[in-house]
Amino acid sequence: MTDDLDRGLPIDGPQLLRDLRELATIGGVETGVERLAFSPDDVAARRWVAARMAAAGLEASTDRYGTVYGRAVGASRAVLIGSHTDTVPRGGWLDGALGVAYGLAIARAAAGRLPDGFGVDVLNFQDEEGTYLPCLGSLSFTGELDDAAVTRARDRAGTPLRDAIARAGFPDLDVRLDPDRHVAFLEAHIEQGPRLEAGGLDIGVVTAIVGIRRLRIRAHGRADHAGTTPMDMRADAGMALFRLANRIADGFAAVGGAGAVWNIGSIALQPGAANVVPASAEMVVEFRDVSDATLDRLEEALRSWAADLPVPVEADVIARIRPTPMDARLGDAMEAAAHAGGATTLRMPSGAGHDAMVLARRLPSGMLFIPSIGGRSHDVVEDTAEDDIVRGCQVLADTVLRLARSAA
Amino acid sequence: MTDDLDRGLPIDGPQLLRDLRELATIGGVETGVERLAFSPDDVAARRWVAARMAAAGLEASTDRYGTVYGRAVGASRAVLIGSHTDTVPRGGWLDGALGVAYGLAIARAAAGRLPDGFGVDVLNFQDEEGTYLPCLGSLSFTGELDDAAVTRARDRAGTPLRDAIARAGFPDLDVRLDPDRHVAFLEAHIEQGPRLEAGGLDIGVVTAIVGIRRLRIRAHGRADHAGTTPMDMRADAGMALFRLANRIADGFAAVGGAGAVWNIGSIALQPGAANVVPASAEMVVEFRDVSDATLDRLEEALRSWAADLPVPVEADVIARIRPTPMDARLGDAMEAAAHAGGATTLRMPSGAGHDAMVLARRLPSGMLFIPSIGGRSHDVVEDTAEDDIVRGCQVLADTVLRLARSAA
Repeated sequence: MTDDLDRGLPIDGPQLLRDLRELATIGGVETGVERLAFSPDDVAARRWVAARMAAAGLEASTDRYGTVYGRAVGASRAVLIGSHTDTVPRGGWLDGALGVAYGLAIARAAAGRLPDGFGVDVLNFQDEEGTYLPCLGSLSFTGELDDAAVTRARDRAGTPLRDAIARAGFPDLDVRLDPDRHVAFLEAHIEQGPRLEAGGLDIGVVTAIVGIRRLRIRAHGRADHAGTTPMDMRADAGMALFRLANRIADGFAAVGGAGAVWNIGSIALQPGAANVVPASAEMVVEFRDVSDATLDRLEEALRSWAADLPVPVEADVIARIRPTPMDARLGDAMEAAAHAGGATTLRMPSGAGHDAMVLARRLPSGMLFIPSIGGRSHDVVEDTAEDDIVRGCQVLADTVLRLARSAA
Repeated sequence: MTDDLDRGLPIDGPQLLRDLRELATIGGVETGVERLAFSPDDVAARRWVAARMAAAGLEASTDRYGTVYGRAVGASRAVLIGSHTDTVPRGGWLDGALGVAYGLAIARAAAGRLPDGFGVDVLNFQDEEGTYLPCLGSLSFTGELDDAAVTRARDRAGTPLRDAIARAGFPDLDVRLDPDRHVAFLEAHIEQGPRLEAGGLDIGVVTAIVGIRRLRIRAHGRADHAGTTPMDMRADAGMALFRLANRIADGFAAVGGAGAVWNIGSIALQPGAANVVPASAEMVVEFRDVSDATLDRLEEALRSWAADLPVPVEADVIARIRPTPMDARLGDAMEAAAHAGGATTLRMPSGAGHDAMVLARRLPSGMLFIPSIGGRSHDVVEDTAEDDIVRGCQVLADTVLRLARSAA
């Protein structure tokens, strides 16, 4: 056993980078890629992944939605490694693709180097980005996909998901989580934020995927002439929300603690004329934290501040995603593997959602982050240094070896 | 002379109200009216006014734009009384119409009751509301109308003003201010605000028409993922403007004094998604005061606060209208006439623009306000009690008599 660890699972860095560069040519746009779920480029990328799985000695199958599963032949227990190759419009070359390429690289490195009967299975989930239905592939894999939701789902242009599925022509097949076989899920991803780069750190060990709460706030005032109505006789719906926004900016850190983040991404005033006091105003406030109790406290504070405003205000929860803790033992293994290889680490939450959020409900799951240059993502400028890409894959490979050893 | 004053100019209140009700049937919409400048209903209303002028013994003429001028026959000097019969979309029955109907009523009452050679001329200006070009009629009357502006002007649907003029088919005629004849301009109007009603007062004596300054504020931040970017690493353009809006609400009263009013009528954040930190934000801030120096101080304060924000901000003046003082002697005469008739008064600025703003540059001009129910205007619910309508007309008539006596 100690021999296995010493020898490690040596990652072929140049091959990993070649895989990523080749995959990035499918749907390439400037320095990024665009592979919207079920688009011809998405289908082509999934075929490419299936071929690379086969070349790595995995048994590849594609399900009815396009999720590609590469099964380690001869193994009875396996670590699942994967992510997704679909992207947002004008997305980056690494978001999702990185986690799939890591799976391929580690499956290749693991061949013949893991305890008998133990393998690495690779997954490429469909539509994580929600072109039609966020995390469609992972929800189907865990058996949580709601048939009615599939029937309802449409893209922004109004195309029904059912039509997109029919057009893509994937096999009439399901691939499903197998609790007897699958011991853990590992997803590697670019950080999509600036913390690792700013701290000069190599690896993010994800403690939890944050919960998200999104409220629509509506203030009801009265339209008055902005020249003839004295200031103290107005019911200004816009100013009410400006006051609330400031209260949030001043108070949320104290209520939510250091880790909580929030955003006011949109606001609109009606009727919207320079010379009319706003009769109504609407804004969307989103906040995220790893603790549901913290999200509750933030919502409660927001509601009490809204109730203090001089005009009537409604607050409706329009989205609520619970926080998802990652498996602590997997986090410890990633951290130990990183430190043993000389990499520095940061325990950090994931501020964005991922397929690991879905998998974690059924299986011990862990996420590993590598630095994002400038913290940029969901844009063609998204990038990560090649050394960081290779280092992250080696840490994840070493993690797999540690898991296999302890599971064997 | 004292006899004239004692006898007064008795207004026929029921006739005044019948005129207003009849005029309100032209373009009637629910409880209001819609007579957009140059529309068939606007043209019909102007024909109706010309006929009523003729019935009152005035010599009526209509100019190329539709301004209707009723000239007191046999007078060599005259007080001008008037306003406009064009309206905003779904406007009120009194905005503009009141000042024209007062002119008709006072011209009728004045017949044979003023010193020899002195008369009341009545004006119904075109497009005060700016369907094509605000105060078109009064600008033409004073000789300030810019021919290039007429050529440029279009309504919201893109119709050129020149086409509207041709379609309306008014006579090829100018009516112009005559400095030898016209001694003063008096415009009566509903207050369009709540101050008279709230104070239980009868008459507003307008001290000045406020100046307006309008600035477009643009903040430049950076779009970041609202989940993965720590709060202290953001450049949030939206929050910068929320901070500025609060600074305005907290600080403008101290800078501008009791009379200044301001409004933030619109704001937009880009890209406008709940989960993206706003990259840019734009809002329009408008402020009004009777003093240009006060407007300068407010603009200076706004610019200094904007410069304090954590992201770059531009502020551009997109509209600048100078304050217009009303003639003090006319104000004194209105106040004296009101008090002599037992009416209570308030010296107050006009927060909205009126034709008197244009006339005041060439002629002593005064404005009289009557209460607006609920302060409402530019809406079909606009209304004023009949007693208030008649009382205001009597005060304006008594003012005319005082002017005629002192001018005779």
